[in-house]
Amino acid sequence: MSFSEKDRTLTSTDASVPVGAHALGDALALLRASPPLVQCITNIVVAQWSANVLLAAGAAPAMVDNQNEAGLFAAAADAVLINLGTPYNDTAEAMLAAVTTAVANATPWVLDPVAVGPLAWRTELAHALLAVGSPTVIRGNASEILALGGGTGGKGVDSLDTPEAALTAAQSLALRYDTVVAVSGAVDHITDGNRTVRVSNGHPVMTQVTGVGCALGALIAAFAGTVDDPLIAATAATAMLTVAADGAALSSIRPGSFAVALLDELSDVSPGSLAERVRLS
Amino acid sequence: MSFSEKDRTLTSTDASVPVGAHALGDALALLRASPPLVQCITNIVVAQWSANVLLAAGAAPAMVDNQNEAGLFAAAADAVLINLGTPYNDTAEAMLAAVTTAVANATPWVLDPVAVGPLAWRTELAHALLAVGSPTVIRGNASEILALGGGTGGKGVDSLDTPEAALTAAQSLALRYDTVVAVSGAVDHITDGNRTVRVSNGHPVMTQVTGVGCALGALIAAFAGTVDDPLIAATAATAMLTVAADGAALSSIRPGSFAVALLDELSDVSPGSLAERVRLS
Amino acid sequence: MSFSEKDRTLTSTDASVPVGAHALGDALALLRASPPLVQCITNIVVAQWSANVLLAAGAAPAMVDNQNEAGLFAAAADAVLINLGTPYNDTAEAMLAAVTTAVANATPWVLDPVAVGPLAWRTELAHALLAVGSPTVIRGNASEILALGGGTGGKGVDSLDTPEAALTAAQSLALRYDTVVAVSGAVDHITDGNRTVRVSNGHPVMTQVTGVGCALGALIAAFAGTVDDPLIAATAATAMLTVAADGAALSSIRPGSFAVALLDELSDVSPGSLAERVRLS
Repeated sequence: MSFSEKDRTLTSTDASVPVGAHALGDALALLRASPPLVQCITNIVVAQWSANVLLAAGAAPAMVDNQNEAGLFAAAADAVLINLGTPYNDTAEAMLAAVTTAVANATPWVLDPVAVGPLAWRTELAHALLAVGSPTVIRGNASEILALGGGTGGKGVDSLDTPEAALTAAQSLALRYDTVVAVSGAVDHITDGNRTVRVSNGHPVMTQVTGVGCALGALIAAFAGTVDDPLIAATAATAMLTVAADGAALSSIRPGSFAVALLDELSDVSPGSLAERVRLS
Repeated sequence: MSFSEKDRTLTSTDASVPVGAHALGDALALLRASPPLVQCITNIVVAQWSANVLLAAGAAPAMVDNQNEAGLFAAAADAVLINLGTPYNDTAEAMLAAVTTAVANATPWVLDPVAVGPLAWRTELAHALLAVGSPTVIRGNASEILALGGGTGGKGVDSLDTPEAALTAAQSLALRYDTVVAVSGAVDHITDGNRTVRVSNGHPVMTQVTGVGCALGALIAAFAGTVDDPLIAATAATAMLTVAADGAALSSIRPGSFAVALLDELSDVSPGSLAERVRLS
Repeated sequence: MSFSEKDRTLTSTDASVPVGAHALGDALALLRASPPLVQCITNIVVAQWSANVLLAAGAAPAMVDNQNEAGLFAAAADAVLINLGTPYNDTAEAMLAAVTTAVANATPWVLDPVAVGPLAWRTELAHALLAVGSPTVIRGNASEILALGGGTGGKGVDSLDTPEAALTAAQSLALRYDTVVAVSGAVDHITDGNRTVRVSNGHPVMTQVTGVGCALGALIAAFAGTVDDPLIAATAATAMLTVAADGAALSSIRPGSFAVALLDELSDVSPGSLAERVRLS
């Protein structure tokens, strides 16, 4: 299921972009052909929404998030998502258990460090998770990525910074943890420290629906459970969600209708339309 | 509020089917006339969705799920739903307290053994709940029912088996616990061990929306709090959800729109249309 | 950001109504100009819905609800919502910590005493929270307000009483705790003990969607974080939600579609349309 560098170069329309549009379509075709089982240890706000996003995209979500089962279940999962939205003492224990299993089995895992920085307890939790082993992908908004890299972070769950401002921090974070960092924003920036891809699809109404970013973390985990290259996985998920958002925004830019349309569009995105509609740079 | 065997025979259009279509319509009329208070101890993924399904159908949900109140509240509820989707240590305690009260008061209770089998801890929890006393109805997918009957279970929360393959296990489970077992799938199978009803309404898009099965468990509890015969209760709930799904699928088979339409259709299903549109065998 | 008594009298179309329609529009304009950060410690059923209501209205939700962070985070929030829908031992501790910080910092906080009365544990929790300091606003249905004032309360989460029947209890509760009490129902009653406002917008389908009342509590917190007069804050939130509901009910009175339309309408309500469409008495 890996995509060689050669394939990517061949399918990219612009040799300077490290991920080609067709590689993203191919990743989606693989995901649909063999739906990855994605263990989500996520927050109470977005649990339903994340599951519905994964189902609409074609993946198989499983929210096994208690400390008695999370470590065991991670051994069966194709990928693990750890989202720090509403962590509790017990779920923190479940997260550590799941990540320990994932690292031991070389199962891909994704860290979504919601609101790290201003909140010391979850920031320590994020670092404790990183100390178990490198995540496959870290996804956050610019403030979260800056905070994880040593900055001060945002206010609440919203970013005060732009992805462009966080790119240097993202690149050094990627190199430090040998991971891929996806910085969400008006233009999404995805980097492994050496290669950086920008995805410029999407619409501002996405910020008016809770959990769109969290759902992106779940979708990145689904793709990380599908393809070997984490840069492709993170880019494919970002492309799929934002291409679907482009379609949904044509139906409605009012938040209730948009959220419904986003699920509809996710189920409609084909490998071909993904490759055609994504705007990479 | 009980339906005699005679009534059912009279209203059934096919004497070989143990539950008649009109008995289901009558059950819905009773539910709407006197909305049952359904205590749901369910998972964080589907809590909102299950409450909305119950409200749309005409029941009164109450998610009292902490260990300090669950046992007390069960004494006031018309029915109790226990769903093992995301159990924690504290909610496990709440579940045991609520079931203990329900059994003591002969209040109907429904067990939805989500993902039992591969996960040992919740499988033990399911058996601990069953040891308190017989549930009124057990609802699960085929893999869950096979696992509860002693098989190995599915992968994650999805079924790897068909309801037909699980029917023997369902029948013996029903006899062992003196309960009704509802096996969800393309064709739903509902059995008390001796009598078996099949409902063949519904649409595959139901599997693309998280929590449709969990909501069925909640709806079965609502009907179990309305009519005395658990076979009618489980069949009426299954019929209502799948007849509504038939209607919703006419509006849209895209998952976001379908989920919205399903709630709309649940509020629209009348006793007459339920009896007319259900496909029993 | 305060509205003087003089302003309110001038903008009111009826001098006998203590809050004028234009003051509500002005409050919404302020909220949109400077989105308040609303910390919500709420229940698992409505967490997503409440966040989406706040986002659609123009506020910034943050569901920081664990006991390690809730007290700290309240120091940064513009307002705190405490909703007793599904409290656990740990979230009870988080609530007490957040309210302690809010009271110490004079940060507005709102208490939504879901299902107090019949459930002793959460009723004690409500009184423990009130003992920390006066909330800015208490929002509940009539049974909850009667119960908090010493009555027996409702059955489950639904009210058995009308707002009119609870008005005397609401007024004495407001005076006892130096707070504003908002009693939700067909006609919403909002009182500080001396002044009482009635809002008669809204539609019965609101009771068929879970969490509309809970979302009102969150919206009241958002306005309490925006304007100084709690009577205006509670009235503005009630007006905004019910005016939006009026609009949504024109699209659909089926519960699934209505809920989607309600979010759409919340994002569409302008200060001008709010002032024009609200029915105050």
